[in-house]
Amino acid sequence: MTSDAGNAAPEPSDTPSAERASNGAAGKGADRPGDAGVDAAEAVGTADAVEVLGLVAALEHQAFARLAGDSAQAPGLEQALALSRFAARCTERRDRVLARIAELGGDPVAALARFGTVLDDFDARTTPSSWSERLLKAYVGYGVADDFCRLVARGLDAQSRVLVAELLDDASHAELAVRELDAVCAQDSVVSARLALWGRRLVGEALGVVLRLAQRPGVARVLDRADVGSAPAQETPATVFNELTAQHTRRMSRLRLTA
Amino acid sequence: MTSDAGNAAPEPSDTPSAERASNGAAGKGADRPGDAGVDAAEAVGTADAVEVLGLVAALEHQAFARLAGDSAQAPGLEQALALSRFAARCTERRDRVLARIAELGGDPVAALARFGTVLDDFDARTTPSSWSERLLKAYVGYGVADDFCRLVARGLDAQSRVLVAELLDDASHAELAVRELDAVCAQDSVVSARLALWGRRLVGEALGVVLRLAQRPGVARVLDRADVGSAPAQETPATVFNELTAQHTRRMSRLRLTA
Repeated sequence: MTSDAGNAAPEPSDTPSAERASNGAAGKGADRPGDAGVDAAEAVGTADAVEVLGLVAALEHQAFARLAGDSAQAPGLEQALALSRFAARCTERRDRVLARIAELGGDPVAALARFGTVLDDFDARTTPSSWSERLLKAYVGYGVADDFCRLVARGLDAQSRVLVAELLDDASHAELAVRELDAVCAQDSVVSARLALWGRRLVGEALGVVLRLAQRPGVARVLDRADVGSAPAQETPATVFNELTAQHTRRMSRLRLTA
Repeated sequence: MTSDAGNAAPEPSDTPSAERASNGAAGKGADRPGDAGVDAAEAVGTADAVEVLGLVAALEHQAFARLAGDSAQAPGLEQALALSRFAARCTERRDRVLARIAELGGDPVAALARFGTVLDDFDARTTPSSWSERLLKAYVGYGVADDFCRLVARGLDAQSRVLVAELLDDASHAELAVRELDAVCAQDSVVSARLALWGRRLVGEALGVVLRLAQRPGVARVLDRADVGSAPAQETPATVFNELTAQHTRRMSRLRLTA
């Protein structure tokens, strides 16, 4: 990971030794005397930002493929059209994040590639068996992923932070999912109960993915700077877990389902 | 079909009897005396335009799904990114055509739905067995489909004609296909020979699809007005076939493959 992060932001000062130096000085701020130390910390900061932005871009890229697949399987043409538009928007969001990675001196494609398989496990464990299950999977899966990205992004430089917050402020897919799932659940309490169960499986798997992501050194450092719930750095994982769970409960209650 | 076309453009004057009146007056122009005749001809013209625009929109919608699938299967991330961008652009083009259908008083979703399965046969008969075959399928398939749409669009009202011509003027997918296939063919003459054969199968199937489309009454009437190769109306199918074949030969020669 450390050397990967170095590759993603090939700046003059971003050497493995600089990376190690800062890895030792974990925690918030990492204010050390001497120009070399500041430069090294800055380089690590940039490499970490590229890592986190690579994750955001990868999630958008995979959301594109998923929504395009959903569009092809949608039961109605109106839904297929709406989902294809959401998919198209994912490519725009992804490309804006890739442009920011390039601005920071990183390699956009390498940064994206690092997270190319990030959802493979999640997908293998959660194969939907109906259109409603598919919609709920996207609703819960994107919900957790977006919430996590929003949390981590708080630890980025101002420009990247604003960009991520702005991009993730598009609730159009969630609105479609809520509208359709709400209609389904209102008609059939058995389906509703099964979907509630499915939602619990989905959120468990999704939290597993993001908590593993949170342990990647680059992501963890940005997360520490993010002041999640203003807890001490060593409690960050628990705080992230609590915050994501709370958001998930809110999301399920929009469907009148118990989380 | 005739009553379908009526449904797509529910204007006051677009009654089944108006449709029949103009069906009888086939050929170019259909100049008949009396206001009722002109109104009826206009209504048929609009219904036919909606039919043709529905075809263009449906092809873009299906190109979106296809390119998104290609993006997911692309051997490299650079290609995956490029293909996802092409897919996104298909949704924009489709939506511009749907907007034009609405402007003409048609029902965009109904117009699109009429051609929802237009490529199913083509797909069933042409399953690619490699990435190169997949690329060539899109290159040949879109090539023939776009050429056909361009031909038919010449028979539309000025605004629709300009719109279709403008939308289909995006050669970015063709350029990617040519670049990649050219590289593959340059390295391996056996692969090159197999791809030439595959290209011939593809164009045969694609021409079959468009010639069936050309026989739909609404499409046929627009095609007659299109003055294809300035031949008499009854020779239109042969002229369309010749023009599409000539374009295909040009397209294959860009790959240095024999059509």
